[in-house]
Amino acid sequence: MEEEVLALHKKYTGVLSIHSDLSVLNSYDLSKAYTPGVAVLSKLIEKNHDLAREYTISGKLIAVVTDGSAVLGLGDIGSQAGLPIVEGKALLYKTFSEVDAVPLAVEQVGIDEFVATIKNMANSFAGIHLEDIQAPRCFEIEEKLQQQLDIPVYHDDQEGTAIVVLAGLLNAAKVVGKPFESLKVVINGVGASGVATAKLLAFAGIKSITLVDQQGVLKEGDQTLNPYQATLVQQLTCSTEGNSLAEAIVNQDVFIGLSVGSVLGKGMVETMNEDPIVFALANPIPEITPELAKEAGVRVMATGSSAYPNQINNILAFPGLFKGLLEAKGKKVDEALEYQVAKALADMVEQPTADKFIPGVFEPNVVENVKHAVINFFKK
Amino acid sequence: MEEEVLALHKKYTGVLSIHSDLSVLNSYDLSKAYTPGVAVLSKLIEKNHDLAREYTISGKLIAVVTDGSAVLGLGDIGSQAGLPIVEGKALLYKTFSEVDAVPLAVEQVGIDEFVATIKNMANSFAGIHLEDIQAPRCFEIEEKLQQQLDIPVYHDDQEGTAIVVLAGLLNAAKVVGKPFESLKVVINGVGASGVATAKLLAFAGIKSITLVDQQGVLKEGDQTLNPYQATLVQQLTCSTEGNSLAEAIVNQDVFIGLSVGSVLGKGMVETMNEDPIVFALANPIPEITPELAKEAGVRVMATGSSAYPNQINNILAFPGLFKGLLEAKGKKVDEALEYQVAKALADMVEQPTADKFIPGVFEPNVVENVKHAVINFFKK
Repeated sequence: MEEEVLALHKKYTGVLSIHSDLSVLNSYDLSKAYTPGVAVLSKLIEKNHDLAREYTISGKLIAVVTDGSAVLGLGDIGSQAGLPIVEGKALLYKTFSEVDAVPLAVEQVGIDEFVATIKNMANSFAGIHLEDIQAPRCFEIEEKLQQQLDIPVYHDDQEGTAIVVLAGLLNAAKVVGKPFESLKVVINGVGASGVATAKLLAFAGIKSITLVDQQGVLKEGDQTLNPYQATLVQQLTCSTEGNSLAEAIVNQDVFIGLSVGSVLGKGMVETMNEDPIVFALANPIPEITPELAKEAGVRVMATGSSAYPNQINNILAFPGLFKGLLEAKGKKVDEALEYQVAKALADMVEQPTADKFIPGVFEPNVVENVKHAVINFFKK
Repeated sequence: MEEEVLALHKKYTGVLSIHSDLSVLNSYDLSKAYTPGVAVLSKLIEKNHDLAREYTISGKLIAVVTDGSAVLGLGDIGSQAGLPIVEGKALLYKTFSEVDAVPLAVEQVGIDEFVATIKNMANSFAGIHLEDIQAPRCFEIEEKLQQQLDIPVYHDDQEGTAIVVLAGLLNAAKVVGKPFESLKVVINGVGASGVATAKLLAFAGIKSITLVDQQGVLKEGDQTLNPYQATLVQQLTCSTEGNSLAEAIVNQDVFIGLSVGSVLGKGMVETMNEDPIVFALANPIPEITPELAKEAGVRVMATGSSAYPNQINNILAFPGLFKGLLEAKGKKVDEALEYQVAKALADMVEQPTADKFIPGVFEPNVVENVKHAVINFFKK
């Protein structure tokens, strides 16, 4: 496949291009498309800045921004090497939801300069999609941008992952017949996606969450935690029993892996409660293979890969989410909105089973349903 | 026309959109367009950064950047109100030369922050087209960006205008039968375009240039000049006789107006040398109307408007210029290149007359000829 991928992406220098929606064949066309016609628009916008988003591409264009510091499976590869990822994401926006998005690689400068760079050009865009930015840097960047901009700011590795995990878990609970709020959940990997997922699961009603990172179970007062992890441990009144993943997972209902491949052993799964739910979302190698998980007695299993049933994939969320935000002129992505999107996705599977409890990314109506959930949310 | 312009630009929220050049219909397509396929590209680029410009849109996408501080005929209207102008320019790139360009409004922050903002995202682009940025700020911004970036940086109000003025003047000299280098030239308006035009005319061989701005004739040692104007007066050994435009224009061959409407009186023109050449390029109202200029005895006249013959319009330059830069992988726009482009444009009119000495913007081969001039320049 490698040669084919290279050829495809080289043919047109990338996979996106700019399309003109006006034809300019003569001086009269030119006078409407460019000068003196555009002076009319400029004067209007000078008086009322909001009109820029009605009469220019800035009302529909999403910037998909990366600094290449935390690319799934590759790590910190630099901003330029992150470009194929964000160009791919922009392609998915167009393909799945007809949303116009442009890929931007921004240098790995200090947080304040990074925020200023995006803020200084934010009037060009209708939304900011952050991608593959390292934790905890990504938390502060997103927080500051949300405070300073009047357009939606969304970090796919945080909110996107949280949404699709919650969607899957709402239905997985039904499959095993346990009340959702009673689920005891272990989240392994407390980076961008782990933090956001923990917050959203708590928002959705989960009472017992244990957070496990490379150093083991996150505990209050641990000086090695970053401020966002520390706040999380405090706010969620996390379960902090045990030290290792092996200790933490005993008698739990759910394992959510947002970490690295092969860290969940068969023996560990066997210590979980009856009918364990395992989301092994590391890519390309999951925390445990579905084959091994099955041997260990897992009832309900999801991965991040399309090679297995029940792929938990952010593509289910972001195209419809921004389509809805643009239509509703929504300014903020928060947990209440994320919850509604997750619920809309979960509701698409009328009778969830172990074989199928989450919609497929190519299933019809995914984007429509997500979009409507967003629009309804902002109507309230 | 106003209603029609508003409707056209509102229909699709601006006049541009993003086009996908790959179809993604199933998981296999997805694996090539996005993950895991893009990981192949990311790994390649991590090792060799230059490959980003072969495999991603960053190899062909031009950023058309404004801060809205010096919009023709409108002045400082703010960055958002500049958006219709830069979106229009991006539309012209696509329409005239199939070059992909995206409009960006960047806040009017300090020069160093402005430069840093563009530098921080420059890996996303194959070139930077600056537009409608106030002098003298624009000089420092362009200079710093050219020093710091490895992609071409071009300011249309400077280099673009200089190119098309020179193209026109090369042929206007032929029409009146005066040797080009002997022409005595007055430039009225010493902002972005005046400075760049003076530099390029001097590069092309013009010996006598008088620069006139609002305060009158520019003179060495004048403390009110900005550093760029001061350097210019020194370097060009400008003629600095007289104080006002009326005094400066006596016995001159050429008036180049890059200023504001109606500043050139009929009486002033009558004091010029025989067969005066007048380029009255202010928009929408020229420095002198062609009707009045004719009465005053002007032989060769150009304006910036399509309503008259011999429109001096930057559209003749930038689409082909960047098309050529992209093909030749040219890194720098300097006077030697600008001269070649101007000459290519001038050469398109085989027998220049007063009625026609510059190609029309819709004439076939304009872009091709400019492109080839650029490619040949970089071959040397």
